[in-house]
Amino acid sequence: MPNLVLIRHGQSAWNLENRFTGWWDVDVTAKGAAEARAAGVLMRDKGVDFDCCFTSLQTRAIKTLNLALEEMGRLWLPVEKDWRLNERHYGGLTGLDKAETAAKHGDAQVKIWRRSFDIPPPPMEPGSAYDLSNDRRYAAITVPAAESLKDTIERVLPYWNERIAPELKKGKRVLISAHGNSLRALVKHLSNIPDDEITSLEIPTGEPIAFHLNADLSVTDRYYICDR
Amino acid sequence: MPNLVLIRHGQSAWNLENRFTGWWDVDVTAKGAAEARAAGVLMRDKGVDFDCCFTSLQTRAIKTLNLALEEMGRLWLPVEKDWRLNERHYGGLTGLDKAETAAKHGDAQVKIWRRSFDIPPPPMEPGSAYDLSNDRRYAAITVPAAESLKDTIERVLPYWNERIAPELKKGKRVLISAHGNSLRALVKHLSNIPDDEITSLEIPTGEPIAFHLNADLSVTDRYYICDR
Repeated sequence: MPNLVLIRHGQSAWNLENRFTGWWDVDVTAKGAAEARAAGVLMRDKGVDFDCCFTSLQTRAIKTLNLALEEMGRLWLPVEKDWRLNERHYGGLTGLDKAETAAKHGDAQVKIWRRSFDIPPPPMEPGSAYDLSNDRRYAAITVPAAESLKDTIERVLPYWNERIAPELKKGKRVLISAHGNSLRALVKHLSNIPDDEITSLEIPTGEPIAFHLNADLSVTDRYYICDR
Repeated sequence: MPNLVLIRHGQSAWNLENRFTGWWDVDVTAKGAAEARAAGVLMRDKGVDFDCCFTSLQTRAIKTLNLALEEMGRLWLPVEKDWRLNERHYGGLTGLDKAETAAKHGDAQVKIWRRSFDIPPPPMEPGSAYDLSNDRRYAAITVPAAESLKDTIERVLPYWNERIAPELKKGKRVLISAHGNSLRALVKHLSNIPDDEITSLEIPTGEPIAFHLNADLSVTDRYYICDR
């Protein structure tokens, strides 16, 4: 049985519309909610169970977690929510769809932003419709203007080390519901994936990824639960 | 604006069937889920907001909280779940409907158990279909065999004092989603309601009750949010 499971939120409205989302708080679609419930049913049926859960401050990840836990009869598990599990902040690209971004910045540049490890997108313009720097949920932090994957890793890993790894070392089974890039950060760390490979690792929505970890948190097995 | 709101879970399947529920983990009905969402819409529309939330380890209270928070756009708020906010444990009455209980124990005795302050119902028989003493969620505690309202108060108030009151004293706005009797415990404490009156105080499902509290947590106002 895995002692760590990662799940990317179910399909969101902007996944469907192919728009850069980042920290913008887009909800899951009906399909995304169904994916979340199906993930819960799958884990329940496979006998996968948990002692504690972690998620971001974003509705799509929290709701995915809640729907999965509901299907597992595990809504009572403790859940910690933290901004450090949020999606990568897409800065000035937030809200744009692929065609708009390509028209504004050119295909080559967009590919660089999407796939480079350490080049952040252009910064969020203050006062933009998608500027979250005055959102109450982020009152305790400085909302980034934009993040590369490297920037994302640099805030995910301290959270992992401070809050999540200690629970695993105590023998707790952990479920993390988060986002494409915050989960890339964790998979890269756990499975030692090089910088130039991690940017192209696709993490599908609503598919629980199981890890078997030793006491030192080295990985002995990693697989999609649906494949076993 | 209130700094404390209490909400009893939306209608549960056993509220509807008029069965003693207690710690048994009965889900909300479709009507109960709608009540929870309506409570969230009401609070959002009235501008009522929160900094942190508390609930029990029981699905109906957790789900009520989640549905209300979703409507408020506040799923990201921290939520602490604790058994001390659970419903009163109805012991050997758990699962019985009114007619069954009256047939087994007589109307007069049932009235005593329902309405007395300090007489607990008969104990849960170990191994009964409703015995939760081996439920993993209660592994850290001894599940009571039965609780009077007085017993319920005696575990709710320490939790209030340790975990909830300090947040209010720090100026945080608190939402508590819980159960008829764990909320009676809080209302009795806050509004100094005598033992013989609190047993007949009815707390309706899904109706948020607002409190305005001073810095010393004395009550200056208490009302149903729907009435203002």
